[in-house]
Amino acid sequence: MENLDEIKKKAEVLIEALPYIQKFSGKTVVVKYGGSAMTEPKLKRDVIKDVSLLKLVGFRPIIVHGGGKAISTWIKKTGGEPKFVNGLRVTDEETMEIAEMVLNRVNKGLVALIESVGVRAVGISGKDAGLLKVKKKKMRNADLGYVGEITDVDPSILTNLMDDDIVPVVCPIGYDENYDTYNINADDAACAIAKAVGAEKLVFLTDIDGVYKDINDKSTFISRLTCDEADKLIDEGVIGGGMLPKIAGCVDAARNGVNRVHILDGRVPHVLLLEFFTDHGIGTMFMKEKEKK
Amino acid sequence: MENLDEIKKKAEVLIEALPYIQKFSGKTVVVKYGGSAMTEPKLKRDVIKDVSLLKLVGFRPIIVHGGGKAISTWIKKTGGEPKFVNGLRVTDEETMEIAEMVLNRVNKGLVALIESVGVRAVGISGKDAGLLKVKKKKMRNADLGYVGEITDVDPSILTNLMDDDIVPVVCPIGYDENYDTYNINADDAACAIAKAVGAEKLVFLTDIDGVYKDINDKSTFISRLTCDEADKLIDEGVIGGGMLPKIAGCVDAARNGVNRVHILDGRVPHVLLLEFFTDHGIGTMFMKEKEKK
Amino acid sequence: MENLDEIKKKAEVLIEALPYIQKFSGKTVVVKYGGSAMTEPKLKRDVIKDVSLLKLVGFRPIIVHGGGKAISTWIKKTGGEPKFVNGLRVTDEETMEIAEMVLNRVNKGLVALIESVGVRAVGISGKDAGLLKVKKKKMRNADLGYVGEITDVDPSILTNLMDDDIVPVVCPIGYDENYDTYNINADDAACAIAKAVGAEKLVFLTDIDGVYKDINDKSTFISRLTCDEADKLIDEGVIGGGMLPKIAGCVDAARNGVNRVHILDGRVPHVLLLEFFTDHGIGTMFMKEKEKK
Amino acid sequence: MENLDEIKKKAEVLIEALPYIQKFSGKTVVVKYGGSAMTEPKLKRDVIKDVSLLKLVGFRPIIVHGGGKAISTWIKKTGGEPKFVNGLRVTDEETMEIAEMVLNRVNKGLVALIESVGVRAVGISGKDAGLLKVKKKKMRNADLGYVGEITDVDPSILTNLMDDDIVPVVCPIGYDENYDTYNINADDAACAIAKAVGAEKLVFLTDIDGVYKDINDKSTFISRLTCDEADKLIDEGVIGGGMLPKIAGCVDAARNGVNRVHILDGRVPHVLLLEFFTDHGIGTMFMKEKEKK
Amino acid sequence: MENLDEIKKKAEVLIEALPYIQKFSGKTVVVKYGGSAMTEPKLKRDVIKDVSLLKLVGFRPIIVHGGGKAISTWIKKTGGEPKFVNGLRVTDEETMEIAEMVLNRVNKGLVALIESVGVRAVGISGKDAGLLKVKKKKMRNADLGYVGEITDVDPSILTNLMDDDIVPVVCPIGYDENYDTYNINADDAACAIAKAVGAEKLVFLTDIDGVYKDINDKSTFISRLTCDEADKLIDEGVIGGGMLPKIAGCVDAARNGVNRVHILDGRVPHVLLLEFFTDHGIGTMFMKEKEKK
Amino acid sequence: MENLDEIKKKAEVLIEALPYIQKFSGKTVVVKYGGSAMTEPKLKRDVIKDVSLLKLVGFRPIIVHGGGKAISTWIKKTGGEPKFVNGLRVTDEETMEIAEMVLNRVNKGLVALIESVGVRAVGISGKDAGLLKVKKKKMRNADLGYVGEITDVDPSILTNLMDDDIVPVVCPIGYDENYDTYNINADDAACAIAKAVGAEKLVFLTDIDGVYKDINDKSTFISRLTCDEADKLIDEGVIGGGMLPKIAGCVDAARNGVNRVHILDGRVPHVLLLEFFTDHGIGTMFMKEKEKK
Repeated sequence: MENLDEIKKKAEVLIEALPYIQKFSGKTVVVKYGGSAMTEPKLKRDVIKDVSLLKLVGFRPIIVHGGGKAISTWIKKTGGEPKFVNGLRVTDEETMEIAEMVLNRVNKGLVALIESVGVRAVGISGKDAGLLKVKKKKMRNADLGYVGEITDVDPSILTNLMDDDIVPVVCPIGYDENYDTYNINADDAACAIAKAVGAEKLVFLTDIDGVYKDINDKSTFISRLTCDEADKLIDEGVIGGGMLPKIAGCVDAARNGVNRVHILDGRVPHVLLLEFFTDHGIGTMFMKEKEKK
Repeated sequence: MENLDEIKKKAEVLIEALPYIQKFSGKTVVVKYGGSAMTEPKLKRDVIKDVSLLKLVGFRPIIVHGGGKAISTWIKKTGGEPKFVNGLRVTDEETMEIAEMVLNRVNKGLVALIESVGVRAVGISGKDAGLLKVKKKKMRNADLGYVGEITDVDPSILTNLMDDDIVPVVCPIGYDENYDTYNINADDAACAIAKAVGAEKLVFLTDIDGVYKDINDKSTFISRLTCDEADKLIDEGVIGGGMLPKIAGCVDAARNGVNRVHILDGRVPHVLLLEFFTDHGIGTMFMKEKEKK
Repeated sequence: MENLDEIKKKAEVLIEALPYIQKFSGKTVVVKYGGSAMTEPKLKRDVIKDVSLLKLVGFRPIIVHGGGKAISTWIKKTGGEPKFVNGLRVTDEETMEIAEMVLNRVNKGLVALIESVGVRAVGISGKDAGLLKVKKKKMRNADLGYVGEITDVDPSILTNLMDDDIVPVVCPIGYDENYDTYNINADDAACAIAKAVGAEKLVFLTDIDGVYKDINDKSTFISRLTCDEADKLIDEGVIGGGMLPKIAGCVDAARNGVNRVHILDGRVPHVLLLEFFTDHGIGTMFMKEKEKK
Repeated sequence: MENLDEIKKKAEVLIEALPYIQKFSGKTVVVKYGGSAMTEPKLKRDVIKDVSLLKLVGFRPIIVHGGGKAISTWIKKTGGEPKFVNGLRVTDEETMEIAEMVLNRVNKGLVALIESVGVRAVGISGKDAGLLKVKKKKMRNADLGYVGEITDVDPSILTNLMDDDIVPVVCPIGYDENYDTYNINADDAACAIAKAVGAEKLVFLTDIDGVYKDINDKSTFISRLTCDEADKLIDEGVIGGGMLPKIAGCVDAARNGVNRVHILDGRVPHVLLLEFFTDHGIGTMFMKEKEKK
Repeated sequence: MENLDEIKKKAEVLIEALPYIQKFSGKTVVVKYGGSAMTEPKLKRDVIKDVSLLKLVGFRPIIVHGGGKAISTWIKKTGGEPKFVNGLRVTDEETMEIAEMVLNRVNKGLVALIESVGVRAVGISGKDAGLLKVKKKKMRNADLGYVGEITDVDPSILTNLMDDDIVPVVCPIGYDENYDTYNINADDAACAIAKAVGAEKLVFLTDIDGVYKDINDKSTFISRLTCDEADKLIDEGVIGGGMLPKIAGCVDAARNGVNRVHILDGRVPHVLLLEFFTDHGIGTMFMKEKEKK
Repeated sequence: MENLDEIKKKAEVLIEALPYIQKFSGKTVVVKYGGSAMTEPKLKRDVIKDVSLLKLVGFRPIIVHGGGKAISTWIKKTGGEPKFVNGLRVTDEETMEIAEMVLNRVNKGLVALIESVGVRAVGISGKDAGLLKVKKKKMRNADLGYVGEITDVDPSILTNLMDDDIVPVVCPIGYDENYDTYNINADDAACAIAKAVGAEKLVFLTDIDGVYKDINDKSTFISRLTCDEADKLIDEGVIGGGMLPKIAGCVDAARNGVNRVHILDGRVPHVLLLEFFTDHGIGTMFMKEKEKK
C-alpha cells in the first residue's frame, strides 16, 4: 500500500483538474486523431482512454481520424502503386474504393476500443446524414481524382449522437452533388466540423511538439499564438512547408468561433489529459486574439 | 397530358394505400436486403425509393444488408481464395479484415443512395454503440473462424436514430466479449434486430418468390403460414436445404413479437410498395397464429 | 389478380408521390370545402378520404366549410324566406339562429366522415377558444344584419388540435366584442385562417376549373398567376363578377405568407390528391411572385 | 366605500375557500348542466362564472349539457310534434336532425359565455375525436329511434383540451359503429365521461334540492349517502320515479372511481361555488363508502 | 346554518375575485414582509394565509422579510449593544454573525408557517445559489461595517423553486466577491429581486396606511402616483425623512419593469387579499406612467 | 516545469479515476459532514473541493452537516449552560432557538464555500418543503426536550434542487405535526435522507479511521462488513459505546437500498476523493451482503 504522501499527491492531481472540468463541462471538443498516436498500440489505447474520460466528466468529444499508411498498404496488396502529387494522394476510382474500405474499418476499430472502456461510440463518415458535402478539389497542374474540398457541413447528426450520450467517430469521406464519393483531408474535415458545431476546442494530435520560430533551436518554441501573429509568421516564411496547411487550418478555425486550437504531440502519453486537466502549457495554442487579463 | 381516366386510376392507387399507411404509421419495419435487389442497379434504386417512401409516410424502416459477392471478389483481388463449409464462409483473420472493409463500404453506398432521394440515413455496424454482441459460432466438425452467433442486442442506437428521423442501415458485424470482430449472417442479424426493436414487420428481399409445397409445381405456392404450420412442413421435410435457416428465422421472429414476417421476391420491381400499400398478396407471410376473423 | 404490368403502374404512381410527400411533410394546408364536392355524396367521400390521406402522410390539414343550400332549406321549413343582397345573405336574428344550427350540424357530419376512415377530427366554430372575432359588415346601401367581417384570428386552438394529431374542421361563425354571433363568408374565413397559421397551401374546392382570360375560350386557361398579374387582370376587368372576391382573397393570402393558393375543380374526383401527389398541373395557382429557376 | 367590518368579512370568505382550492387543485370536475340553471339567464350567467372560477383557481372542469325545451320548440316550428315514451324522446330521423342542430347551437352559446369572462372554452359533441360511441337503445315495447346507449368513451380529446387550458363543453350526441348519429341522455353522458376521465367530482345541477326519505317532509332530507345506502333506498322503493335513473347513475359513478357525486339545486345562485368553496353542506352527496374519521 | 342572504353574499365575494385571479394568474408577486404584520401573531398568520391563497389560485409569490427587533434582542442577550448611524445598523463582525443567525431562524419560522397551511415553501438567503451579490456600502462619515449594497442578482434559484411549485422565502443577506457575508436592507433586497424576476407586483407591508401630502391631514391621502409625480413630491420635500428611501425604491422598481408597486398597511387584517381580490383601492400605488383609458 | 515522469504520473492518477467516474455518474451520494473535517479550516476547504469535484464529474452529492461545538459556545455566550444526557443534548426551548440559529448559519457558511469554487449550492433545513418530519424522542428516564425522531422524509425538494444542478446542503432540524421545531441527530438525518433518495453511497466523515475488532490492535482493522457480520459484532459486544448508534445507522441504510455505506477518516486530506476515485480501500465499508465475484 502506498504511503500517505503518495495518497496526498493523488488527491492533489484530481483537485488540480477541478477548475478545468468546470470550465469545459458541456462543451464540445474536436480531436483530430492521427500520426503515431494512431499506430502505436499503447498510445492508441491511451488516447481512447483520454477521450473516454473527457466524455465521462461532461465534455462532448468528437473524434476525426485519418487512415494513414493502411491505405497504401492495401493499394499495394491489390497490386496497385500509391501515387502522390505535392503530398496529396492521387485518388482514382480504384484508390477511392480502397480508401473508403480502409477508412471505415479503421473507424469501426476505434469505435470498438471506446466501447471497450464502457463509453458508447458510433462511427460515421461524412456521407452519413449528409454530414460533409464536397466538390472536386482543383489543382493547377494535376488531376488528383476523387479528392474533395468541403462545401457544406450539416452537423445535426453529430448533435443528435452527442445528445444521446454517444461519442461520434468521423472518417473523412463525403459525397458531391452527384453523390459520388470523395476522399477528404482529415485536418480539413476536423476544422470544418469544429467550426460547424461551434467547438470550444479543436485539438490536433501530431508527431511534432508544436511550432518553433527556428526548428533547430528548441528555445524558440512558441506556446501561444494569436491569429494575427500566425499570419505574420506565415508571411515572413517562418511557417511553411508541410506545416503550412495545418497552421492555416488552425488560424481559420480560431477566427471562426473555435475558442482554442491546439497542436499537441501525440507521442507524449496521455497528452490530452495533461492539456485539459493540468496547469501545464503543452504544445502550441492558437486563439483569435490576446486575452484581456 | 393524360386523359381523365388515367388521372382517376392514379387517384385510386393512392386511395388504395390509405388504410395501409394508417395501419403502419409509427411502426418499425425491418428490411433484410440482399440478392438481386442489391446487385441490379435498377432494382437497387427501386428498393431505396421504396424504403424512402415508407419513411416519408410515417413508418420507421431499418435496413439490414449483406455484402454478397463483393467479399469474394476482394479476397481474390488480394490473392486469396474464398472458402466455404456448408455454405458458411470460413473467415480467418485476413478474410474478416476484408469482409469488414467491404461490408462497411457497401453500407455507406446504401446510405448515399437514400440520402440522394432526400431522406436522412446513417450507416452503422453491430459494433456501433454495442448493437450486436456475439460469441464464436461452434460447428461440430469445422472451425469457421470469425463467424459470430448473436448473444445480445442493444437496440438503443436504432431507436435514437429513428427518433431523430434517420433511417438506420446496418451491416452485420459485431464483437465478442474480448472486442474481437466477427462476421454475422445477415438473416440472423435482421431477425435478432426485428425481435429486439419489437418490429411490426420483418421483410426478406430474396431471389425466390416464396415457399412452395412442391418447388416444381407452381400451384402449390403457400401465401401464408402460421408458425405451427411451418414447423410441420419442416418436420415433414417439405422445407429444407438452403431455405431451412431462413424459414427457421422467420418462425422464430414471428413467435417473438414480430407481427408479420415476409419472404418477398426482390426481383419484382417495387415489391416492397406492393406488399405495403396494395391489396395484393405477395410472397409468403409468416404469423404467430391464425387470425380471428 | 392483376398482371405484372398493372402492378408496375401502381408502384409508379406511388413513387411519383414521393417527392411531394417529402415537400409538404409537416406543412399546414387549409382546404376551403364547398360546392358540388360537398353535396354529391360520392365526391364528398372522396374529399374526406383525400384529406385523411394528407393527414396520414404527414401534412397538417385544416378544413373550412360552408353550409350552402341547407341553410335556405331550413329557413323555408320554418316558414321563412331566404333573402340576399348582392349575393350576400341577409341575416336577421332568426336566420342567424338557423344558420348556426345548420352549419354546426354540417360540421359534425364532416367530423364523423373523417373519423369513419380512422383519422381523428374535431369540429369547431370561430366561437371556440376565440378563433374568429368579427365586427358587423357595413354595406353602403343595405343592412345585412348578422354578417361579420373578421377583425382578429387566434389560431392557437388549431395548433393545439393539430399538435394532438387531430384534423380541425371549422365552420365560419364568430362573435363580435359583445359576444353576439355572426355569420362569416367561408372563403374569407379560409383566407384569414390560412394567413394566421402561416399555411403552406390554401386550396379552394369550387365548381369551376380555374381562371380563364376569356371564359368562352378554353384555350385561354391560366394555370399560374403572380399577385401582380392577378391585380392587372382585375384592373383590366378580365376577372370580375362573382369570382372577384374569391380571387381577391387568393391574392391577399398569397401576399401574406401563404406560399401557394389554388382554385381547384371539386367536381374532379380526388382532385386534391392529384394536385398534391402528382405532376399534373390542375386548376389555377396563385403565388406571390415568379419563381427563380 | 365599505366599512372595515365589511372588508373583514370579505377576507374571511376568501380565506374560507383556501383549503378547498388546495384540495381540488388539478382535479377534474364534471358538471352536468341542465334545468332552470340553463334557462334562467341570470342563473345561467352565474353558473358560467362559477365554472370559470373553478378553472381559474386550478380545477379542470368539464361541462356536459342537455338541450331541454329548445328541441321541442324547434320540432314544432318545423311543423312536427314532439313525442315521448316513458319520458324518453322518440327520435326519428327528422327529430335527430333537429336535436343535433339545436344541441350544437346551445353548445356554442355556452362556449361564447365562458369566453366572455375570459376563459378559453371549446364546444364538442360525442362525435368529435370519437368521444362517445353508442348502440341503439333497446326498449321492450317501443322503438325510440335514434336514442343511443353509450358503449365506449375515448376521453383523450377532453384531456388534450384541458391540458391546453381549455374548458371542454360537451353536447350528448354520439355515433354508432355505422357512424349514424344518436341522441344520448345527458345524465348518462355526464356519468360515462366522469368515470372515463377519473373525475374527482361529478355534479348534477337540477331543479330539486336533493334526496328526501319522504318528499313531503323537509326534515327527512338526506345530505350524504353511501352507495350501499342508496341501493337500499332503491330496493325499499324510497327512491323511484323520475329520480331513479339519475340516482342509479350517481351510484354507478361513485362505485367506479368518481370520489364524490352531488345532486345540487341549480336554482340557488352560485350553488357550485358554495359547494366547492365553503363549509356549507348543500344538496345530496354520494360516495363509495363511509369515510374513516 | 347561515341564511340564504349570507350565502349569497359569500358567493358574491368569490365572484368579485374572478377577474383579479384571471389577471394575475401565473404572474410573479414580491411581498416585502415587515413591521407589525410580522410581530403580531394573529396578523402574521393572516399574511401567511393570504400568501398561500395567492399561491393556490395561480400566482407566484416571493416573500422577502427582515428581522426587525429580534436582532437587537439577541445582541443584548450576548452582552452587546445595538448601534445605529442614520437609522442604519452598524454591523461589526459579531453583529453580522448574530444577524445572520437571527434572520435565518426567522426565515425558517415563516417557512414552517406556510407549510402548516399546506403550501410548499423553501427558505433561502441571498447566499444560496448566488442570489444576491453585494459590495460594502460606503457612507461619507461613518463605517457601517458589514452592510452591503446589492451589485448583482441571479434570480435563477427563485425561478427554479417557483417552477417546482414552491414559495421562496428570502432573508436579505449576501456575500461580496471575497465571499464575506453582508447584511442587506430588506426593502432594497425586495426591490432588486422584483426587478430581476420581472415581477408584476411588488408589495410593501408597512405600519403606515400610505402616502399623504400632509401627514396631519387625512384628506390629503394619495392613492396612486406616477413615477414623475413621486419625483416631484420628493423634490418639493413633501416626501422625506424615513420614508424617502422606501419611496425611492418604489419609484425605481416601477421604472424598471415592475408594473405596480404598493405600500400597504400591514395592520389591516388580510390587506393582501383585499388588494389583490377586491375592488377596494387600498394604500398607495406607484406606476410608471398614467394609464391610457 | 515538471519532468516527463511527473507528468506521466499525473495522467495515471486521472486515468485511475476513469472507471469510478463511470460507475457513479448520475448517482446520488450523501455525505454526512462533521468532526475535524468541519472545524479545521484547511480540511473544510478540502472537503468542499472534493464535493464540488464529485458534482462536476456527474455525481449528485447531498451534504448533511451538524453544528458541533458552536451550539455550546453560543449557549454559554447567552449565559446558559449546555446539558447532556447519555451524550444527547438536552434541548429546552431556549436551546432549540440557539441551535436553530447556529445550525442555519453553519449551513449558509458551507453554501458560500461551495459557491466560491463555482458550484451552485442551496442550504435548507428539514423544515423546508417538508423534508423531515419528526416526533419527540422518548427516553426512559429523561426528558430531552426538543430532540426529534424522524417519522417521515419527503425528498422531493432534494430531487428538485439536484435536477436544477444544485448541491443541497441540509441542516438537521425538522418540525412535528404541530409544526414545533426539533433538533435531529445529524447521523440519523443523513441515514434517513440516503434511504429516501435511494442513494448509491452514504459516507460518514468522522474522526476515527474505521472499525476495529480490538481498538487497541491496529491489525484488527475491518475494511468491509456485511450487515449480518455487523449485527454479529454488535451482539458480541465488539461494537458498542458511542459507535453503536452510528454503526446501527450504517447497517440500517445498507439494508434499505443504500448500496455502500462508508465510515471515513475526515482527518485525511481529500479522503472523499481517494475513496471515490482511486483503488485504495479506505475506512470501513458496509454493504447488504457479500458480493458474488
